Amino acid sequence: MDSYTPNNPEYADVVRASFARQAMMETMGATLHRVAPGEVTIHSTNPACAGQQQGLAHAGLTFSIGDSAAGYAALTLLPAGFEVVTSEMKIHLLAPGKGDRLVAHGRVVRPGRRLVVAEADVFAETGESRVLIAKLMGTMVPVPVES
Amino acid sequence: MDSYTPNNPEYADVVRASFARQAMMETMGATLHRVAPGEVTIHSTNPACAGQQQGLAHAGLTFSIGDSAAGYAALTLLPAGFEVVTSEMKIHLLAPGKGDRLVAHGRVVRPGRRLVVAEADVFAETGESRVLIAKLMGTMVPVPVES
Amino acid sequence: MDSYTPNNPEYADVVRASFARQAMMETMGATLHRVAPGEVTIHSTNPACAGQQQGLAHAGLTFSIGDSAAGYAALTLLPAGFEVVTSEMKIHLLAPGKGDRLVAHGRVVRPGRRLVVAEADVFAETGESRVLIAKLMGTMVPVPVES
Amino acid sequence: MDSYTPNNPEYADVVRASFARQAMMETMGATLHRVAPGEVTIHSTNPACAGQQQGLAHAGLTFSIGDSAAGYAALTLLPAGFEVVTSEMKIHLLAPGKGDRLVAHGRVVRPGRRLVVAEADVFAETGESRVLIAKLMGTMVPVPVES
Repeated sequence: MDSYTPNNPEYADVVRASFARQAMMETMGATLHRVAPGEVTIHSTNPACAGQQQGLAHAGLTFSIGDSAAGYAALTLLPAGFEVVTSEMKIHLLAPGKGDRLVAHGRVVRPGRRLVVAEADVFAETGESRVLIAKLMGTMVPVPVES
Repeated sequence: MDSYTPNNPEYADVVRASFARQAMMETMGATLHRVAPGEVTIHSTNPACAGQQQGLAHAGLTFSIGDSAAGYAALTLLPAGFEVVTSEMKIHLLAPGKGDRLVAHGRVVRPGRRLVVAEADVFAETGESRVLIAKLMGTMVPVPVES
Repeated sequence: MDSYTPNNPEYADVVRASFARQAMMETMGATLHRVAPGEVTIHSTNPACAGQQQGLAHAGLTFSIGDSAAGYAALTLLPAGFEVVTSEMKIHLLAPGKGDRLVAHGRVVRPGRRLVVAEADVFAETGESRVLIAKLMGTMVPVPVES
Repeated sequence: MDSYTPNNPEYADVVRASFARQAMMETMGATLHRVAPGEVTIHSTNPACAGQQQGLAHAGLTFSIGDSAAGYAALTLLPAGFEVVTSEMKIHLLAPGKGDRLVAHGRVVRPGRRLVVAEADVFAETGESRVLIAKLMGTMVPVPVES
């Protein structure tokens, strides 16, 4: 994996402040963990309120934390004054979303000023067990923050 | 659009029973509307608990109702004793998720026993205004219900 | 479908000149047909040189004409002095590429200055028969022509 | 990356025989290199006949070798008597297809009897230089060989 140099030394604060304003992340039982240049990790408690018909994680939960991990990975590399929106995203669901914790690792594949390509892997963890349940890849678009 | 003949005359009951078991749909403020062969419509109140950092619908909300509409559209065409899981799904986010109501129309593109290709359009509605905010397309896999 | 107003009155000439420079289109037996604002149709003779192991159209042929139809549909709406490159593209292959002629209809889903979302349907035609063999959707990026 | 055990000890011969029947691969200047369980590498001479309007590799060439590398990676893990077809594929084009040689590395992400998820990276090489120009991820479906 490439290493990246952030354009904004305050990148981690920018990510944390944006994450804190997302009601969806709280609803999904999600918290922000590692925030590094081009990489972000989000954990979720896999809450019952985000279950599907069998009580497993709904694809929408897996997507939400994977997409957010990829998007915030992109945000770590942007200049000050920008945020990021998802333009398009693909998700492959590889195994049932069953576990005590879901962990999404997002990382930048190709940085850019007009668009950023980013991906994420989502794992379900229970005790020592860890299963890859989804892979995402998509396009993030930097947009100036409206103030 | 093609018209489809359901394999299970009880298809609407199957869809409604499955939908009622999805905690995620309740959390997303979502209710099931039209259920027809190869087509399903889901409405969401666009609840604050599923907002992103600007208070608009999070991509995960738009994905959740679009994916569910596409998946239930697939389920309408399956024989009795099956349910459906998303294998992969793509979403293009075309406009901000801003409105009193989000409406997801799912429909089957190509039915099949091993996999079903389905798509969904998601609209944001406020009063008489209606904006296309997302398009989804993906692959659903029929799986036997475990009893 | 929306109707679009071109930004460059010479859009059709721009598309035809670009298409004529693509060796790949000639190799794929492809010719440009309808060129309208936001819409382009490409035909291919489904040549033997682009077959797969069973002699049907290779996915790469179907992709090539579908992607080009979507890309040129985007180009019809751009100002003078721009061309377009594919940033990402998804394809669903729905039926075998078997027929005397392949026809790709591309159209713009959402125009934009920074990126254009476009899609394409590809049909296989033999005599009066016409089968949808693929659907594509993706992101095109306008770039200034280097002169 | 996971390691995989092939179901057919003759897997490499199966892949090589199928590849040899693909006219498209010859047209794309493509040859088969590494064939290992769950992994396949294809090289292309980046031929002029597959160029776009600027003489670089057409997206259809990059797609063709990436898709084939992913598909043949899937085929290495199937039992005797099967071949594989692409159901859906996404490609991100990351850099211009400019170089003396294009190299596509395909690998299986998740094996399966009904569907196989596979991905590919495509590089452009010139002398010692090597640039990642595309990433693909998609769904392959095993189908019995018709004899």
